[in-house]
Amino acid sequence: MRRFGFYLVAIAVTVCVVAVISSASAQSAGSVFVTKIPVGYRDWKLISVAHEEANLNSFGAVLGNDVAIQAYRDGKLPFPDGAIIAALHYRFVPSEENNKAFGQTQSFVAGDPTNVQFMVKDSKKYASTGGWGYGHFSQDGTPGGDALLKTCSPCHAKAVRDSVFTRYSR
Amino acid sequence: MRRFGFYLVAIAVTVCVVAVISSASAQSAGSVFVTKIPVGYRDWKLISVAHEEANLNSFGAVLGNDVAIQAYRDGKLPFPDGAIIAALHYRFVPSEENNKAFGQTQSFVAGDPTNVQFMVKDSKKYASTGGWGYGHFSQDGTPGGDALLKTCSPCHAKAVRDSVFTRYSR
Repeated sequence: MRRFGFYLVAIAVTVCVVAVISSASAQSAGSVFVTKIPVGYRDWKLISVAHEEANLNSFGAVLGNDVAIQAYRDGKLPFPDGAIIAALHYRFVPSEENNKAFGQTQSFVAGDPTNVQFMVKDSKKYASTGGWGYGHFSQDGTPGGDALLKTCSPCHAKAVRDSVFTRYSR
Repeated sequence: MRRFGFYLVAIAVTVCVVAVISSASAQSAGSVFVTKIPVGYRDWKLISVAHEEANLNSFGAVLGNDVAIQAYRDGKLPFPDGAIIAALHYRFVPSEENNKAFGQTQSFVAGDPTNVQFMVKDSKKYASTGGWGYGHFSQDGTPGGDALLKTCSPCHAKAVRDSVFTRYSR
């Protein structure tokens, strides 16, 4: 009986240790979302621009780190690990000043910033979401919740070029 | 009569020489237009994005060299000599691929490139056009003609921040 009790405790401890290790792993190496804003992204090079109507009504500038830009310019698919793509979103607003200069209503510019989104390529860490980790940060740096972030991968999976919608503008 | 003829010829020659010197000067140091595409502009940092409807129907990305970006970030006006602002223009086109993913028509992207325009700050060289030299190059690198370039400065002079329309997007 004492021996049985020893085994029971040993098994319980082992299960707990494994559970703790798995949990720690899921929070760091295994997280499927990007939880920190990549440093220096505002200085990255331009990939292209984008505008979404409807509810989003956004004006976007899509930038890439050096790994992403090189892959784009070389036409390399899938994107290599280390590639990061940033989508800077602003309100899509008319410009009164520009329209006055043109003498007619025709000019739209980037208004207040709304959010910045990231795709980080790490084929092991983000294997469950096509090799891309997705991140969303409001203008004040608040990360998007899991419910929002879970919608990224299924939609991006529809993009024909390695889950990436934006093409490079020469 | 011979003396009068001599003076007439002398005056004519002088006028011609002055005209030739003026012309040469206008084509080199005194040119009011930018005649060469600034090296490496495609790698410059993002200032903002822009869209023009009507005849232009353009999608623009506005980039700046380091001098321009620093001035923008510091809120420095007028822009210092050496600042260069580049406007990369593309067709404003709907994206079928994106619309399919969204399940509705809402997405516009940069289509074929149309031209790239530059504003180069040199308060002495371009003194006659507010300190800015203006350049326009078609996608194949062909510079815009004088008739087109002469329209830049009067329009930009209407911009309230040192002839620059585009504001910096944080």
